[in-house]
Amino acid sequence: MEMRNVTEADYVRVISVIDDWWGGRMMSDLLQRLFFIHFQETSFVIEEKGTIIGFLIGFPSQTLPKVGYIHFVGIHPKARKEGYARILYEAFFEKVRELGCEKIECITSPVNKGSVAFHKRIGFKIKRGTTSVNGLQIYQNYDGPGKDRVLFEKELS
Amino acid sequence: MEMRNVTEADYVRVISVIDDWWGGRMMSDLLQRLFFIHFQETSFVIEEKGTIIGFLIGFPSQTLPKVGYIHFVGIHPKARKEGYARILYEAFFEKVRELGCEKIECITSPVNKGSVAFHKRIGFKIKRGTTSVNGLQIYQNYDGPGKDRVLFEKELS
Repeated sequence: MEMRNVTEADYVRVISVIDDWWGGRMMSDLLQRLFFIHFQETSFVIEEKGTIIGFLIGFPSQTLPKVGYIHFVGIHPKARKEGYARILYEAFFEKVRELGCEKIECITSPVNKGSVAFHKRIGFKIKRGTTSVNGLQIYQNYDGPGKDRVLFEKELS
Repeated sequence: MEMRNVTEADYVRVISVIDDWWGGRMMSDLLQRLFFIHFQETSFVIEEKGTIIGFLIGFPSQTLPKVGYIHFVGIHPKARKEGYARILYEAFFEKVRELGCEKIECITSPVNKGSVAFHKRIGFKIKRGTTSVNGLQIYQNYDGPGKDRVLFEKELS
């Protein structure tokens, strides 16, 4: 396993598999090439024998310089539950802490129960949304009509 | 007419009209709330009598600090050809020049002939793509499968 910063060339390798990784959900619209060009210092990929098995795209906020924002994280379906996501998050935490961040923010879709559980497990708190569904705080229409999201935050210690 | 920096509250106002502004093209997936939270200093809206008639989302690249990247620009259909887009671009040029940028980059969809013409008119050059269609350089699958783009760049003088 090798972890390194993303490059623009990684984009083509990731975008061609991403909808499959999400079980057919249309995720590729959310992941534009710009993220692989302009935020390389705080974004990471993990390769195993030359294949990308995970990646994280994040950046320090330009408006809120103490906030690190994680935009997108993907793990190959065959490499899940092996700790790779945690390794990527920790690499991001360490890097943005060096850059002055004190807090991490990210969001996920309410249908992604695995993602909600993962974020809680690694110490994220769920922020207040606009409604509660089965005890889960959800921010309705957060990313446009019908695009509800769960909002996470974590203080860096 | 009043121009100011974007706020997060502008997101809801913009996202609810954006597909209409584009004549029904599904643009809202490209414009996520994160851009209205983390890049406020270099993003602008123009209001007229309390209505948003135009906006620009852009930021200095974190990887390439001399490059300012314009992600998204929208003008209300009833306010087109009145120079508002040029006003927004010039505000962005001025702001990122202060921040040390020497070059601007942005992209558009090849179907958006008005956008291609506009960028040429205000001094952008079209970068080499992967193919040429009717004399226009197009980068195929730039933002994922089927998402061809025209790439622009402009040196700030």
